[in-house]
Amino acid sequence: MNLKRQAVRERILQAAADLICERGYRATTLDDIARHLGMSKASLYGYFVGKDGILAAISQETMGRFSRALQEIARSPLPPHEKLRRVVHHHVELVLTHRSFLTVFFSEEASLPARFARAMARQKDRYDKGVEKLIQEGIRQGVFREVPPRLVVYALLGMVNWLYKWCDPAGPLGAEEIARAYLDFIERGLLAPKAFQEPQLRRRLLRLRREMDALSQLLASHSAP
Amino acid sequence: MNLKRQAVRERILQAAADLICERGYRATTLDDIARHLGMSKASLYGYFVGKDGILAAISQETMGRFSRALQEIARSPLPPHEKLRRVVHHHVELVLTHRSFLTVFFSEEASLPARFARAMARQKDRYDKGVEKLIQEGIRQGVFREVPPRLVVYALLGMVNWLYKWCDPAGPLGAEEIARAYLDFIERGLLAPKAFQEPQLRRRLLRLRREMDALSQLLASHSAP
Repeated sequence: MNLKRQAVRERILQAAADLICERGYRATTLDDIARHLGMSKASLYGYFVGKDGILAAISQETMGRFSRALQEIARSPLPPHEKLRRVVHHHVELVLTHRSFLTVFFSEEASLPARFARAMARQKDRYDKGVEKLIQEGIRQGVFREVPPRLVVYALLGMVNWLYKWCDPAGPLGAEEIARAYLDFIERGLLAPKAFQEPQLRRRLLRLRREMDALSQLLASHSAP
Repeated sequence: MNLKRQAVRERILQAAADLICERGYRATTLDDIARHLGMSKASLYGYFVGKDGILAAISQETMGRFSRALQEIARSPLPPHEKLRRVVHHHVELVLTHRSFLTVFFSEEASLPARFARAMARQKDRYDKGVEKLIQEGIRQGVFREVPPRLVVYALLGMVNWLYKWCDPAGPLGAEEIARAYLDFIERGLLAPKAFQEPQLRRRLLRLRREMDALSQLLASHSAP
């Protein structure tokens, strides 16, 4: 595909995503999209086979971005927790920078043509499995706790995907800040370190310290002249 | 409202939620709903003012369940982390047991009449703030780490809300199991305890232990006959 054609194609998808995002898929017509772009419907057909083709392309493009990033990160020589960090960072960034694409991707699954929907489901499943592999690697290497990997994948992706529902790209929170806060929460959880919570542990440490002090005083008095 | 009327009303909402869930809001007609229930469209109108009224009732009912549970838990004398546990448990259970209601609630926000949508947004905001208060309480009491409360609320709710996308109520995972795994992840995070991760800490503990062993051997040899 030549560059100009590629650029027009992207403009069409962006305009369609914005409109579908605003009005819903069913309420958006090809006429709306063409009018919004100042194009004729006929030239729109030069790029996509109807509205379904546009929806399919938006989903394919979005899924493609997720998959390519994950593959690249998974292939890198980084340790598993660092890989997971990058995946979360990329995921948050993608949701924020391509919000209308993501909104259409997540909200209009039911509108996809059946055959295409099945293909998408397979790709999503591969993505989930890819993230699951990172978690499993981390558990094997002892960096992550023994968690049920599949459930944690769903929890993780739920957290980051849900961003499209509430996060305002024009708001005060940038991708960097959100990803950092989410990663801190993902990695370390909510509870304050056990040591501060478990008075028992603290008491035992204190007792040990007192014992050492008493012992060293005793030693000092023994060796006194 | 008398009991029979109440029961019919609930049957209508359930049937409508199931159909909307399957076909989307726009594609579902009042005729479909009436036919599905074996009722006339006229008697349907005896309960709801059109399709919008049904969608509004499904959303209101769902939001009401969330809010009532949160209020009840918040009023209880439990410590904040225990309150949060109950909120997560209830939330997971609600998504699993009322899946079509929840799917309609989350997917058809854009189809709600504007005035009603604003009222719903206010109620959602109150719910978010209620969960945020629990987190803040936990931080104040030192049970939770110093996290950004609003972001953690969104992360938490994203995790549990996303369930409607993937969790099959007929599948092997029950609400209890999912809630337990999610809570463990929420509370303790992914990373294995620092002590196992930080070779430095482990080395220092080991050195301390060796020192103690050496000391006690020394003491034993001194006091030998």
